[in-house]
Amino acid sequence: MSVAPLPDLLIAPLVRAALAEDLGRAGDVTAQACIAADARISAVFAARKPGVVSGLACVRLAIGELDPTAEVRLLANDGEAVAAGGQLAWVEGNARALLSAERTALNLVGRLSGIATLTRAYVEAVAGTEARIADTRKTTPGLRALEKYAVRCGGGVNHRFGLDDAILIKDNHVAACGSVGEAMRRAKAAAGHLMKIEVEVDSLSQLDEALAEMPDVIMLDNFGLEDLRKAVLKTAGRVVLEASGGITLETVRAVAETGVDVISVGALTHSASVLDIGLDAARAA
Amino acid sequence: MSVAPLPDLLIAPLVRAALAEDLGRAGDVTAQACIAADARISAVFAARKPGVVSGLACVRLAIGELDPTAEVRLLANDGEAVAAGGQLAWVEGNARALLSAERTALNLVGRLSGIATLTRAYVEAVAGTEARIADTRKTTPGLRALEKYAVRCGGGVNHRFGLDDAILIKDNHVAACGSVGEAMRRAKAAAGHLMKIEVEVDSLSQLDEALAEMPDVIMLDNFGLEDLRKAVLKTAGRVVLEASGGITLETVRAVAETGVDVISVGALTHSASVLDIGLDAARAA
Amino acid sequence: MSVAPLPDLLIAPLVRAALAEDLGRAGDVTAQACIAADARISAVFAARKPGVVSGLACVRLAIGELDPTAEVRLLANDGEAVAAGGQLAWVEGNARALLSAERTALNLVGRLSGIATLTRAYVEAVAGTEARIADTRKTTPGLRALEKYAVRCGGGVNHRFGLDDAILIKDNHVAACGSVGEAMRRAKAAAGHLMKIEVEVDSLSQLDEALAEMPDVIMLDNFGLEDLRKAVLKTAGRVVLEASGGITLETVRAVAETGVDVISVGALTHSASVLDIGLDAARAA
Amino acid sequence: MSVAPLPDLLIAPLVRAALAEDLGRAGDVTAQACIAADARISAVFAARKPGVVSGLACVRLAIGELDPTAEVRLLANDGEAVAAGGQLAWVEGNARALLSAERTALNLVGRLSGIATLTRAYVEAVAGTEARIADTRKTTPGLRALEKYAVRCGGGVNHRFGLDDAILIKDNHVAACGSVGEAMRRAKAAAGHLMKIEVEVDSLSQLDEALAEMPDVIMLDNFGLEDLRKAVLKTAGRVVLEASGGITLETVRAVAETGVDVISVGALTHSASVLDIGLDAARAA
Amino acid sequence: MSVAPLPDLLIAPLVRAALAEDLGRAGDVTAQACIAADARISAVFAARKPGVVSGLACVRLAIGELDPTAEVRLLANDGEAVAAGGQLAWVEGNARALLSAERTALNLVGRLSGIATLTRAYVEAVAGTEARIADTRKTTPGLRALEKYAVRCGGGVNHRFGLDDAILIKDNHVAACGSVGEAMRRAKAAAGHLMKIEVEVDSLSQLDEALAEMPDVIMLDNFGLEDLRKAVLKTAGRVVLEASGGITLETVRAVAETGVDVISVGALTHSASVLDIGLDAARAA
Amino acid sequence: MSVAPLPDLLIAPLVRAALAEDLGRAGDVTAQACIAADARISAVFAARKPGVVSGLACVRLAIGELDPTAEVRLLANDGEAVAAGGQLAWVEGNARALLSAERTALNLVGRLSGIATLTRAYVEAVAGTEARIADTRKTTPGLRALEKYAVRCGGGVNHRFGLDDAILIKDNHVAACGSVGEAMRRAKAAAGHLMKIEVEVDSLSQLDEALAEMPDVIMLDNFGLEDLRKAVLKTAGRVVLEASGGITLETVRAVAETGVDVISVGALTHSASVLDIGLDAARAA
Repeated sequence: MSVAPLPDLLIAPLVRAALAEDLGRAGDVTAQACIAADARISAVFAARKPGVVSGLACVRLAIGELDPTAEVRLLANDGEAVAAGGQLAWVEGNARALLSAERTALNLVGRLSGIATLTRAYVEAVAGTEARIADTRKTTPGLRALEKYAVRCGGGVNHRFGLDDAILIKDNHVAACGSVGEAMRRAKAAAGHLMKIEVEVDSLSQLDEALAEMPDVIMLDNFGLEDLRKAVLKTAGRVVLEASGGITLETVRAVAETGVDVISVGALTHSASVLDIGLDAARAA
Repeated sequence: MSVAPLPDLLIAPLVRAALAEDLGRAGDVTAQACIAADARISAVFAARKPGVVSGLACVRLAIGELDPTAEVRLLANDGEAVAAGGQLAWVEGNARALLSAERTALNLVGRLSGIATLTRAYVEAVAGTEARIADTRKTTPGLRALEKYAVRCGGGVNHRFGLDDAILIKDNHVAACGSVGEAMRRAKAAAGHLMKIEVEVDSLSQLDEALAEMPDVIMLDNFGLEDLRKAVLKTAGRVVLEASGGITLETVRAVAETGVDVISVGALTHSASVLDIGLDAARAA
Repeated sequence: MSVAPLPDLLIAPLVRAALAEDLGRAGDVTAQACIAADARISAVFAARKPGVVSGLACVRLAIGELDPTAEVRLLANDGEAVAAGGQLAWVEGNARALLSAERTALNLVGRLSGIATLTRAYVEAVAGTEARIADTRKTTPGLRALEKYAVRCGGGVNHRFGLDDAILIKDNHVAACGSVGEAMRRAKAAAGHLMKIEVEVDSLSQLDEALAEMPDVIMLDNFGLEDLRKAVLKTAGRVVLEASGGITLETVRAVAETGVDVISVGALTHSASVLDIGLDAARAA
Repeated sequence: MSVAPLPDLLIAPLVRAALAEDLGRAGDVTAQACIAADARISAVFAARKPGVVSGLACVRLAIGELDPTAEVRLLANDGEAVAAGGQLAWVEGNARALLSAERTALNLVGRLSGIATLTRAYVEAVAGTEARIADTRKTTPGLRALEKYAVRCGGGVNHRFGLDDAILIKDNHVAACGSVGEAMRRAKAAAGHLMKIEVEVDSLSQLDEALAEMPDVIMLDNFGLEDLRKAVLKTAGRVVLEASGGITLETVRAVAETGVDVISVGALTHSASVLDIGLDAARAA
Repeated sequence: MSVAPLPDLLIAPLVRAALAEDLGRAGDVTAQACIAADARISAVFAARKPGVVSGLACVRLAIGELDPTAEVRLLANDGEAVAAGGQLAWVEGNARALLSAERTALNLVGRLSGIATLTRAYVEAVAGTEARIADTRKTTPGLRALEKYAVRCGGGVNHRFGLDDAILIKDNHVAACGSVGEAMRRAKAAAGHLMKIEVEVDSLSQLDEALAEMPDVIMLDNFGLEDLRKAVLKTAGRVVLEASGGITLETVRAVAETGVDVISVGALTHSASVLDIGLDAARAA
Repeated sequence: MSVAPLPDLLIAPLVRAALAEDLGRAGDVTAQACIAADARISAVFAARKPGVVSGLACVRLAIGELDPTAEVRLLANDGEAVAAGGQLAWVEGNARALLSAERTALNLVGRLSGIATLTRAYVEAVAGTEARIADTRKTTPGLRALEKYAVRCGGGVNHRFGLDDAILIKDNHVAACGSVGEAMRRAKAAAGHLMKIEVEVDSLSQLDEALAEMPDVIMLDNFGLEDLRKAVLKTAGRVVLEASGGITLETVRAVAETGVDVISVGALTHSASVLDIGLDAARAA
């Protein structure tokens, strides 16, 4: 699987901020004290557990910020599944710089790979069905672009990137408008021709109301399997159906088999564990 | 338990950036389309699961950024354990503003409360022993100050905040210096009188070497329980001992009972699930 | 017409940066030299020419940044048409602050109102047809959110906000893929379920190709009126049709009458003249 | 005409911000979907209409930000007049990067060239007279340095860069001081020896008052041609005279022929249309 | 003496950055540990040594950032001379906030008052002569606007604020142009009508060359007293004369008595000692 | 003496901000007017007075920002003592760029070298004793990391970097807690195992109280020599003793000879004069 990378322009400021957060006001005092200024080191970033890689650009950028002359060879691609022990990147450069960048690089690539790994598990759980696994806006503040990229690396698709790129009508909006129909009318008037409209429904009767308005997508929130199946039948492919609400790795296959088009899972980004990745240093020439 | 809050000055820029990330280039198009500009709403932030609260200032700040006249009453304190259904904050204000701020507020308070909750579980697991639970630098880039605050809310203590506020001599540093003794000499020469020095050791024989130099703290990395007990005996209280490496909720009590002073756990920040918190809106007057 | 305002959070940083750009390193040296520190002034922002207002929040924010206690009463609404002489806002506050903020406020509200005014002219030119007037990405760097808001104030709708919120397949993309069909397949695989896909075509034969793939929108680039009519017939409402390319106030009605759904006009943002607005000061009590 | 370029340091942050504004949270999804990661392209930036070029550094910087290895050869100089079809720059590099940078580059160079082109028209209209064409502070917020540079490219000269680099006494300041004389006394006391002082007058009688104080420059605001001629006679070269207020391409020559030294024109920056520039891609090897 | 204050907009970002630099990643751990969250304190900022006050806005802003409800009463004005023990400001507010802001406030107001105090000493040393005391661009990076404000508080005037607001032709520029005359021609062609031109000369013969071109100001660099007197005679008031180069408090009066108009002193900003100011806390109610 | 350099990542933003502050909105108008765009120059940065060098990276970075192809050869090392006339760096590159960067480079390296020079004087004054010279938090806002680095270059050690990396209990904290003992108990509960605790005392009786609690460091504030000697005797090496308060170059040796471990001196950073450094240009090929 090949995943189109984000431009460095979107990642580099985050990497620089993360390094600055770790370096503080005095830099890496341990490396400054103990490592000669011109010492060199080579090292390998390797997965300690199996998983799906995401965010290797962060390794390249973190090291490059502290030693622009360091050599970084990526040994895996974002989106690739690696075994425990799998090598991700080989680096060679100034020893102080590499040791100072290590934690920042690991924090980023570990978190993103954790998200990609969890996403992949969901994707594989629904293999053979038509359902696609989608993320939510439940991302880490500041890291949304990267975390949604990690979801793509895992094989998932992205839901809205923010409050501004699609309309999602929920219960509070319907209540304010009086009815789903009025909410849809207002939404259509406000949305440009390149913006999609989704409506969230809590019950089959609400689904009927929503279907009458033909939004682009209907979100079936916390539907049981039986109701999901009925919703799929009712909808008959006229509108994209998205199941959401507390879906786990254990339940996702059954949900997918109801015939919904998309299953959105907040846990992909809000509760993924990091993928355990380490740096194995070799002494340099 | 009372936890001293961080100044808003350290949190507000993160909250603003998180809101801007979510609002994008057009703001909350759904609220703009469906909610009247002057509609008001009141709502309650409530925990869906039991846990320890952290980061309620983010709720206040996120809502205040979008509606400076909104009223926010915190109904719990950071560091407080709440039951499922426990109310955390009551808010009343402009409906568009509150709905637009909701996700950002929840993303922050959910993540921080998740960390506090996991920390508390570790702290309670070692209750009655002398051991303190500490975090690591395995934090989310950009959120270190907040995540370490969440650890304090959970009852843990903080390890280094960055590469610059304490010296931590690891294997690579020892290798570069030739011996633990030489590394300590360099560290002492570099460190001011308000900076502590810690040395990481992998074995009991390395511990002897380290003890000879009397650092402030010795980290016992991946020691078995038996070796931890021997290390405690050998050290006899002369130096603070920190156990680290793959310690889980299942194993932490046994580790604590060996007599070590501190147990550091990366998972507190790198693999905590969010605490599930929701916003229950009431229709406003 | 009521236009939903952007959150101050999205505007205030631009206003602050604009003020700082004008104040430079020494502030308003003329006001500092000539006006007493505690002098007060009241003044009215008034249109010198008829037009459609947009961006009055910038007046409020610019003055508020320099005098938080100033009183600003908006006398018109964004999206409202005003006659020459029409009053937009009444302000009262510290004289130095108001005079220092004047140019920044006028630069912003004049530019945005100029865009709204030009948009309104296009919108009125197509009144009674089904066509909507849309903007493009040909906006002033740094001001896209505001300029697209101004288009909404003029009665237009927004095209993409950036490269990331919709897919727009142009000739270069088709060439890279080999065919429109292959480009669409790749686009569908990449796009989430909340992202629309548009294809640009240069000829009726390309339109056939595009229609076979059923994108959400087809852009008819530089089509003559005759071909536009044929395209509308061929498409028969199955896909949204957008006309673009060198459409002027003189030609827009004829284009609209071909039956296209959307007409996009770069000039709305890249070549609008400012609306001439001035500040009429009254001497204060 | 050779125009001294601005340092990249002053331009690059604007270019980066403009790219980030366009790339949003997911980057160029169309290029990512449709163009191979390693595809290369060459292309030429060419003027579609005749005009005066300004801001080619933005082309170089925008492309360089997304592909640091791209080759950019500038084929024209800022300040140079080009015919319709005139080539401005040849670029070769990563296809995704070039297509992603295209709009940002065009938005900047088009706007700046539009300003330079309009300025040149004014400059040529007064050719053979002593009058110089000057800009005002009516610039786009955030782009003042670049827009004033574009005026220089067009052959104009710059008025104040902000509120802080010269004193300009207007009617409100005179009113606050009681008289032009008192305003000048305060201004001279406040200004350092490297800051000029200008006084705005509305009538010949005010001109007498101002001349008595010998400011560096007197602005004749909205004077008719007859009064301008009288003002020139009265002043007899003792003070620089600047005509301002509603001067158009049609009227500027007559104004210049009255003998004033400087004619300032807000429209140069607030109402210039973009110069139409396009990117013609060739398929790469 | 009344000095016009800088807008808060120019100072507040510096104050916030200074507070953030001091608060680091955990805030004021001592206050958090030892002071109750709701404890209040009142305190007085008082000068420990006599001097001239500058920058009291920094006290107000620093405290206001950490406790927006704190009360701050300024007891002196910027530009005012105070005796040892003189009270500058009374503050009352949250105890943690005030103690946390104390050092930042003192660092700023102490430095600025130090500059104002040294400037005042120079100004008083030349009292009764026509000479004005000016600063240079030898300021602390990041603080130029504030430090030049402090010079004004001391009674001095400001030289250029940067490389962009006046032309200063030095030996390297003359060498590049071939002669002072050619340098002046280029400068006049480049400068707008609101920009002054200064030429630096090293000798009386260079002065003749410069006088022939009638710049606005001539800088007499490192002239002895005898040559300064000759320069004043030669110039006969046609051009402003500025003496510069190693002038000290001991020598400045003699320099002023030569009749030069301006004396610029780098030490005002690059080598002023801080004014010793302290915070005397009273226990609060 | 070899001093570990700070990462460029911590310095470059300051250098860029300083250059931008000096370049303003139009850049170096003098160089633009008088120097050919492609002229080259070589020059040497040389000390005009003897001193200790610090901050040469700022020279490299300032020039590199304006001419990335310039060659910069450092001829001295940070921490090295140079004689009057000693060469610090040789540079060769674009003439406009070098002249534009000159003042920024000199302002930084002059200030930092001034601090290093003053620190060295203190360090040499106590040579042969056990006392180390430490800085304080009385640094220039925004430059703390660099100024504390300069102290290290001078041979000093660093006190706290901010409010967050060590606990320092002063009189206000003791008053709030009721006693030194209670303050220490709270501090120990709050501090992690890598944070040191210091207590400030004003008298020998307070010293007794403090010693009973065994903090890491005790600050003897404004103690006379006699009391310092008594304090050293009493403490008998159990706790690090820091003398502070009004210690000058004249008195520091006597203080050191009392046997204290550390002497902290605010003047190192708040009142150091710049080291006079100049740029001697050679005409280039």
